[in-house]
Amino acid sequence: MSRIEVGQRILQEDLEWAKANSLLFHKHRVGCVNMISSPGAGKTTILTETINALSHDMRIGVIEGDVETDLDASRIRRTGVPAVQINTKGGCHLSAAQVNGALGQLPLERLDLIFIENVGNLVCPSIFDLGEHAKAVVLSTPEGDDKSAKYPAIFARSAAMLINKADLLACGALDFDVEKAIGQARRLNANLEVFVISAKTGQGLDQWCQWLRRLVSQVKILGQA
Amino acid sequence: MSRIEVGQRILQEDLEWAKANSLLFHKHRVGCVNMISSPGAGKTTILTETINALSHDMRIGVIEGDVETDLDASRIRRTGVPAVQINTKGGCHLSAAQVNGALGQLPLERLDLIFIENVGNLVCPSIFDLGEHAKAVVLSTPEGDDKSAKYPAIFARSAAMLINKADLLACGALDFDVEKAIGQARRLNANLEVFVISAKTGQGLDQWCQWLRRLVSQVKILGQA
Repeated sequence: MSRIEVGQRILQEDLEWAKANSLLFHKHRVGCVNMISSPGAGKTTILTETINALSHDMRIGVIEGDVETDLDASRIRRTGVPAVQINTKGGCHLSAAQVNGALGQLPLERLDLIFIENVGNLVCPSIFDLGEHAKAVVLSTPEGDDKSAKYPAIFARSAAMLINKADLLACGALDFDVEKAIGQARRLNANLEVFVISAKTGQGLDQWCQWLRRLVSQVKILGQA
Repeated sequence: MSRIEVGQRILQEDLEWAKANSLLFHKHRVGCVNMISSPGAGKTTILTETINALSHDMRIGVIEGDVETDLDASRIRRTGVPAVQINTKGGCHLSAAQVNGALGQLPLERLDLIFIENVGNLVCPSIFDLGEHAKAVVLSTPEGDDKSAKYPAIFARSAAMLINKADLLACGALDFDVEKAIGQARRLNANLEVFVISAKTGQGLDQWCQWLRRLVSQVKILGQA
C-alpha cells in the first residue's frame, strides 16, 4: 500500500468507529459534546463548573483524553460523575476507536450527556470526528484574538465557541478584543454559537448551560422518532 | 507496505532531511533554535523582542510555521530581519523537509542564528527533529503550572524552557506556581535551562539573550574544528 492508501484506510476506519459511537448515542438518547482547545485554555475547569451547574437537571459522564496522567479525570470524579481516562501516550488527538472503548466503561443507559475532553491541541482533533453531536472549541483570552485565523479548521467545524478567562480582561494586561475574536470566527462559521465566560467566576455559564439543555432535549426528541 | 512500515519510512525520510539541515547549519556556522509552544503562548512576541535585543550582536533569520496566514512572518519582517513563511495547510508540525526548502530562501552565509517558530502545538512538534541545535519550549503562565506533566515529551527534549507572560502573575488572577512548574519540568530534564520572562515588559530577556549568544559562540567554534 502507498502512503496515501494507508492514510485513507486509517481515516475510513475512523469514520466507521465514529458512526458506531453515533449509533450508541442515538440508541441510548444521550447527547455528546467534544471539547477542544489549546493546552491550558480551561477545558477541565469549564467541565467541573458545568457539571456542578447542571447536576440537578441531567446525568453526565465524561471521557478525558490526555497524552499522559489522569489528573483531569480525578478532578472530574470529585464532582461525583463517572469519568473514563484515555492516555494517548504521545498521540495528539483522541480517535473514535479509543472513545468507543471508553463508552463501554460508562453507564450509557443512565446518562443524558457525555463530554469528551480532547487532547489539548487546536490542530489534530479538528480532523477526527468521534461521533459527537457537537464540537465546542474553547479559546482563552490570553491566547490572543487572532487564533481563529491561524487555526481555522476547528472554528469552522465547531457548533459553539467558548471565550474563557473573560475575568482576566479586567487586568488590563491582555491584548484581546472580544468583538474582533467573535467576528473573525463567525466569518469562518456564520452559525457559531458564542459564549463569553469565566469558568473561575461563573460569568456566562448560564447561557452555555441553556445551550447544553437544548442540545440534550433535541437528542431525546430525535431518539424517540 | 504495512501501516507501520509506511510510518517508519516517513520517519526515516524526516531524519535524513534533519541531517541535511544540520549539515547546512554546520557548513555556514549558523546556530538554529526550534521554538515550540501551545497556540498563543507568545512565541512571535518573544522573537521580535529577542531580535531587537540582539540586533547589534548578530545577524538573525526566521522560519515561521503556521497552519494558515503569514501574520507572524509579517510581524518578524517589521524588525528588519529576513523571514520565510511555511503554511502547513492543516499540518500539525513543521517537517525537516519543509525547513530545508525554507533554508534555501535564507542568506545562510550572512546569518549567525536562525529561529524556527513551529506550529502552535505542544504534542506533534516534539517528535520531529528539524536539524536544530536546540529546542526551546515556551510555557505561558495562564496555561497553568501542570503542563510538563501532561505534555512531557517536549519538556524532556528541550534545552531551554521560557516561562512567558510572567507580568500576568502580578494580576493575582492566575493559579501558577513558578517553582512548581520549574521543579516538575526539571524532574523530566535535569539539564533544562529555565528563563522566567515577559516578552511584553522585557523581564528576563537578558539572560535568555546571553544563553543564545553562548549557543552561537559554540556553533562558531565547532564550525572551525
